[in-house]
Amino acid sequence: MEIKSKTNLDYIFSPRSVVVVGASEALQNAGGRFLKSILKMDFKGDVYVVNPNAEKVFDCKSYPKISDIPGVVDHVIVSVPSKHLPAIIEDCVEKSVNSVAIFTSGFSESGTKEGKELEDKLINIASRNGLRIIGPNCMGIYCPQNGLSFRMDLPLQSGDIAMISQSGGIAITTVLSASEKNNYFSKVVSFGNESDLGPCELLEYFKDDDETSLILAYIEGSKNSAKLLSAIKNTSSKKPVIVLKGGLTAAGAKAVSSHTGAMAGAGIAWQAALRQSMALQVSSMEEMLDTAHAFSFLKRPSGKRLGIVSISGGLIVNITDLAIKMDYEIPPFNKKLKQELGEIINTPGTAVQNPVDMAVNFFYPQNYSKVFNLLDRDDSLDILAMHICIEYIAVLNHSISQYSEILINAMAEAFAEIKKPFFIILPYTINDEIRKGFENRFIKLKIPVFPTIERALTAINHCTTYYNKVKNI
Amino acid sequence: MEIKSKTNLDYIFSPRSVVVVGASEALQNAGGRFLKSILKMDFKGDVYVVNPNAEKVFDCKSYPKISDIPGVVDHVIVSVPSKHLPAIIEDCVEKSVNSVAIFTSGFSESGTKEGKELEDKLINIASRNGLRIIGPNCMGIYCPQNGLSFRMDLPLQSGDIAMISQSGGIAITTVLSASEKNNYFSKVVSFGNESDLGPCELLEYFKDDDETSLILAYIEGSKNSAKLLSAIKNTSSKKPVIVLKGGLTAAGAKAVSSHTGAMAGAGIAWQAALRQSMALQVSSMEEMLDTAHAFSFLKRPSGKRLGIVSISGGLIVNITDLAIKMDYEIPPFNKKLKQELGEIINTPGTAVQNPVDMAVNFFYPQNYSKVFNLLDRDDSLDILAMHICIEYIAVLNHSISQYSEILINAMAEAFAEIKKPFFIILPYTINDEIRKGFENRFIKLKIPVFPTIERALTAINHCTTYYNKVKNI
Repeated sequence: MEIKSKTNLDYIFSPRSVVVVGASEALQNAGGRFLKSILKMDFKGDVYVVNPNAEKVFDCKSYPKISDIPGVVDHVIVSVPSKHLPAIIEDCVEKSVNSVAIFTSGFSESGTKEGKELEDKLINIASRNGLRIIGPNCMGIYCPQNGLSFRMDLPLQSGDIAMISQSGGIAITTVLSASEKNNYFSKVVSFGNESDLGPCELLEYFKDDDETSLILAYIEGSKNSAKLLSAIKNTSSKKPVIVLKGGLTAAGAKAVSSHTGAMAGAGIAWQAALRQSMALQVSSMEEMLDTAHAFSFLKRPSGKRLGIVSISGGLIVNITDLAIKMDYEIPPFNKKLKQELGEIINTPGTAVQNPVDMAVNFFYPQNYSKVFNLLDRDDSLDILAMHICIEYIAVLNHSISQYSEILINAMAEAFAEIKKPFFIILPYTINDEIRKGFENRFIKLKIPVFPTIERALTAINHCTTYYNKVKNI
Repeated sequence: MEIKSKTNLDYIFSPRSVVVVGASEALQNAGGRFLKSILKMDFKGDVYVVNPNAEKVFDCKSYPKISDIPGVVDHVIVSVPSKHLPAIIEDCVEKSVNSVAIFTSGFSESGTKEGKELEDKLINIASRNGLRIIGPNCMGIYCPQNGLSFRMDLPLQSGDIAMISQSGGIAITTVLSASEKNNYFSKVVSFGNESDLGPCELLEYFKDDDETSLILAYIEGSKNSAKLLSAIKNTSSKKPVIVLKGGLTAAGAKAVSSHTGAMAGAGIAWQAALRQSMALQVSSMEEMLDTAHAFSFLKRPSGKRLGIVSISGGLIVNITDLAIKMDYEIPPFNKKLKQELGEIINTPGTAVQNPVDMAVNFFYPQNYSKVFNLLDRDDSLDILAMHICIEYIAVLNHSISQYSEILINAMAEAFAEIKKPFFIILPYTINDEIRKGFENRFIKLKIPVFPTIERALTAINHCTTYYNKVKNI
């Protein structure tokens, strides 16, 4: 079906006014939650409600129909049962609404003839009149800078990551999890059944969007895979595109079909095609989040030679093995560096080699600056990392008041001087809340934090791969 | 060097008295910390101190020398500088001490001729007199049932896991991290340089130890690899032995050599030999802990067919892909099961198939029992799993007081009825402290919890592999 396309999607992300159809003050009600989300984001334009049973909902004026609203209406959010949708879409058209996001499910994704026909009907009405549909079966738009949101607890803060997601749940989990590490978003679109607005158009838009420098994509399938892959390839040549493809296996594809009604396509074909584009394919939520974190926080590495500092001789043996298996190098220090380090950290149990086993020197943070400064100046290292064991630190909080604070402050001073790409490995072991405190502080210092060396290097590898490909264009 | 061996190591784990040489009340001092560890564990026998500058340390009587102590001395812990060790070992011999754990480093692991000679000297004195040495360069013994410990914050609670570790740090991290998920230990030995007591003897002992049903081993290298591999193989035929081998790569082996002075040996040869034994080789701390958790908490699975329940349609597409890639099956439900489930969970957005997308039904925990009961009775499923998203639950705590508590109680009731092996996937996304609360409650219910499907299935795979091998002996 041909859509009267407006080539510039700016208007979708910056509506002058929003109407939530079916909102009440009861938050069990999805409409109420959508309304509250917009209000919490401090949307600057007018917000109206369509609810024949209320005069006002959360101080927003309520009308029986969209076309009853006196002012301009740019964007509409709908979560009422599917049978009401044709009338609402007609109403949108009458009011010259620009875009409507439909949360309601029970359309093509249901796999029923009725669902498919109902969806076609909506598109039919909308496309004749240039009304753009997001969804149905989606969460819609999150654009914090312009006050748009689809959940009450999404961050107010904007960032430079854009996301397109066929799954509303994955969009929510991604935005919330990313914000835990201060990774924020410019624009997120959960497009569900992709009856109209879809990934190709969005990717092309984000490619040229000045507020976006990194794009995440959760894709289950597409009506036109060739076109989508071409959009991914085209966009990747300008900005990194991290793709989590759902439904790579037959069982996964089956789960997809009842989720968004999409055809997942053959997993092998997708993987091969993604490899040929410059897209960075990830296999899990964790990998997607880690990779976004690395792109946002890690300085650009010029190679794969690691210099690592730790407190634990045993744990860094394992870290070393894992790094080498992942094709990173941990080059031996030269004689001069060893000698200079040995002048700073020279107690028994310390290993002045790469990785450095700080042993008891870990608890003399006044030496960190000197140690990292030496590593930072060494030409045989590309990336520096520190491995921190909460189980060694936490125990000292019992005997030394504010010990964590003292340690972090000393670390902050040392880290501020490091010029090479630098990251911290901070495993989940004990005292998750103390660990979280450390993580928050490091993130504030703009140091990327990963829970394991494998997760760090998997993410960093994506960055290196991308930078190398871009260099060779 | 031949050791006058006592074949039964019981006496090492159940000394009648302990002496800490060099302990003071200053906890910066390792001796003070070792003493405090023993006292905190409520050791039942006599505890003495050797410190010529004190009369009493933490209420323990202090003597100038071990041989000055009037009563029996079974076990000695030493952390004073290495040069004092020969005299202390002579003193131990004079007092007919059974065993001495030497924390002090600066022996063979230092790579110096002097260090090696000093270590040989100690062994020479000890072996002539049947004194057993643990270490040097080790943490010694943790045996909570008998009040032995090597760190002040190790759990008082005993369990059925034994551990041998060439690294003190890895022993500490393992015990503490495991206890976060209620996995506790019978006996842990950090044996460092393995100058006398080593992994072969310990494995043979744990094989027949009634208090041990699972063994963890962190091994960097051995003086006699063939003998060690044979001990691992022999022990594995009776109890699962989970092996984390450090120094599989050349760089890892280099880190090993300065850590415990061991020769790591060729990684490929070790991996091949471990594969041939029934040992379960893991590649990281997380995998070792997950596997121990699965052995301790998961009922024995009879196959690899998973039935999964989740709230998120998008996330379970990804979970499905990952499970299939790991050679698990997610069989489609038969018509009858679909129909029965459909009678319970029939709101729009719900997918009544495998995996089950509960969607909004997730928030009707009164239905969990019925749903899981149906899956539990189905013959086409071997293992059940529930995927829980903290980011969906946490938001409700704002509007519904004690919502987490209500939900967990309903879950507990449902879970209690499940007869098949069952686990929970509880990712780290947001609100680590709320997540931890959920994890703690599930663990208390004896349900294993993993942060990702990959980590769960990697661990469960080790269990299945082991059970299958044992079946075929």
